[in-house]
Amino acid sequence: MIRNLKDLADYLGLSPATVSRALNGYPEVNAKTRHRVLDAAKRLNYRPNLSAQRLATGRADAIGLLFGIADNMLDNPIVTDLLTGIAETAAERGMAIHLFPTKRGEERAACERIVSSGAVDALVLLSPILDRPDTADLAEIDFPVVCHGRPLLGQAVASMSVDNLGAFFKGTAHLTALGHRRIALLNGEEIYSYAVDRREGYVRALAEAGLAPGPDLMAQGPQTFAQGFAAARAMLASGARPTAFLCSSVLMATGAARAIAAAGLRVPGDISLMAHDDVIDALPSEIAAPGLTVLRSSVRLAGRRLADMAIERRQGTPAADLVEVWDVPLIEGRSTGPAPVDAGGDIG
Amino acid sequence: MIRNLKDLADYLGLSPATVSRALNGYPEVNAKTRHRVLDAAKRLNYRPNLSAQRLATGRADAIGLLFGIADNMLDNPIVTDLLTGIAETAAERGMAIHLFPTKRGEERAACERIVSSGAVDALVLLSPILDRPDTADLAEIDFPVVCHGRPLLGQAVASMSVDNLGAFFKGTAHLTALGHRRIALLNGEEIYSYAVDRREGYVRALAEAGLAPGPDLMAQGPQTFAQGFAAARAMLASGARPTAFLCSSVLMATGAARAIAAAGLRVPGDISLMAHDDVIDALPSEIAAPGLTVLRSSVRLAGRRLADMAIERRQGTPAADLVEVWDVPLIEGRSTGPAPVDAGGDIG
Repeated sequence: MIRNLKDLADYLGLSPATVSRALNGYPEVNAKTRHRVLDAAKRLNYRPNLSAQRLATGRADAIGLLFGIADNMLDNPIVTDLLTGIAETAAERGMAIHLFPTKRGEERAACERIVSSGAVDALVLLSPILDRPDTADLAEIDFPVVCHGRPLLGQAVASMSVDNLGAFFKGTAHLTALGHRRIALLNGEEIYSYAVDRREGYVRALAEAGLAPGPDLMAQGPQTFAQGFAAARAMLASGARPTAFLCSSVLMATGAARAIAAAGLRVPGDISLMAHDDVIDALPSEIAAPGLTVLRSSVRLAGRRLADMAIERRQGTPAADLVEVWDVPLIEGRSTGPAPVDAGGDIG
Repeated sequence: MIRNLKDLADYLGLSPATVSRALNGYPEVNAKTRHRVLDAAKRLNYRPNLSAQRLATGRADAIGLLFGIADNMLDNPIVTDLLTGIAETAAERGMAIHLFPTKRGEERAACERIVSSGAVDALVLLSPILDRPDTADLAEIDFPVVCHGRPLLGQAVASMSVDNLGAFFKGTAHLTALGHRRIALLNGEEIYSYAVDRREGYVRALAEAGLAPGPDLMAQGPQTFAQGFAAARAMLASGARPTAFLCSSVLMATGAARAIAAAGLRVPGDISLMAHDDVIDALPSEIAAPGLTVLRSSVRLAGRRLADMAIERRQGTPAADLVEVWDVPLIEGRSTGPAPVDAGGDIG
């Protein structure tokens, strides 16, 4: 019975190394021998043990994704859409995805285990892990690593991100051009690079319009419905309420829209509403408001590209050649309009 | 230099098999030898190659999840929350999750590859794959398999599901008890067992109240905002509009709520609204309506349990002992109330 590579080699009267090379398509085996080996493998229903094969070829045909379980990263629709994109590329290439859910504080040990195991060809890290000082240097391990998002501390790593600064500059400038002076920013958590960049874009566009950012018009927190609702409600109840909200996600904008409606105000007559839209199938921007004006960048397409970059990195492309920053277009809808005339001037 | 198991064995003057057994805690190695091996491994910084270790122990320390990429299963917030639950259990046990995104028609080949590779200890399948006639028998491969959802064709497989029939019976009966006679069902796709069961529960509860299900009050489709909106809008525009909507997901209910508001109607004064709530962090039931009445079952907890079941199955628990059906409580909120008095009686 042919149970393993050695049995097959014995049967053929060849060395196991030759049989392994033939099965894996190495060029140093001549065509006749290769045909003979493949024929016999098929006829005898030989199924290579993948673990043995990995030892022989050093290729895992898998992409790893390390994420923190404590941060509920997988519970974040942005991460899951990213994963969907990675899965699309993986399916095309017949690769698996290995998820390494990791408890806080165990990221380093997990990386070491993954690298030494040979179970994956490349590792995808999410910038929130690399934005934390205690794990920032994981970007620079001696292994093919690609990062989703710009790493906050400027580590030398292959990365793919969107131009968050440019996007929020563009969005804010669009609102100032419409006459808005009190523009609220409902941002993600500003410990992460994407949110730091978004705030910077917002502040720069305000400055260009001669406006100073008001701390009462800036909120940050998890990109959730509850956070969008609570932050918008508090701002709308204040003496000098905003006339526009720029939100970091469709879910936050959905919460803000609820608060706007609860305050008896209308979009866009009283309040303009705009959001960054990651183009998540489950969360169409219509959920926040019909015809929501958005800054649009598909996180799913980012996932597809990220998986390709991981494979390119593994094939030897230097990290420095794999740094991409995508532009984010503004798609004007019906949720933004001129500032209301009774809203008064600059109160800054 | 100690590069592999054989080097370590040579150094210790033991056989590689003994060293492997000692490292992996097998009882047939005496305590003294085990201590000696573990000491040396630690001192010499010996890190076992995982592929080699898998060959030796036959344990992969990984759970596999096969899903269809064409169905965008991973893009479904229910699936990703399930995955979050699986990841929580995996993190606790130091296991990885291997995702096998698979193109339509390649499920069988993928299963064969996964099983023969030894890369995972057990495989999680989602009932939509097992509900399709061409892939239904994958439930019964000779490998530890657990299924999320009741397999439609009654295959003998370990499975964990919620009592969808009982839940929708309960929800519908709650509405008939409030005097509703025209209750609309916005269901998922009725090619899948969960949706078939939900329709059956709805139909039975109507029958118990002396009502016949009207085809114009039953819609099915993807569990999305767009589907909920379109189906509800069409029903509300009809001559005999429903006074209550029972929805298969929070997202569908969010779409229905938008259609209700667009028609100038109020919840619950004009229309009662209820939904199945999978308790997805990103999609709180508040998104559909403040105080939404729900049939509640956490898909994340289901994922946690499913991973435990996969491990139990691998350890030898028979499939027949691993069939669980969870009860789904009805949590009454403020979105359901008595049928409006001007809504007329039974038009069935």
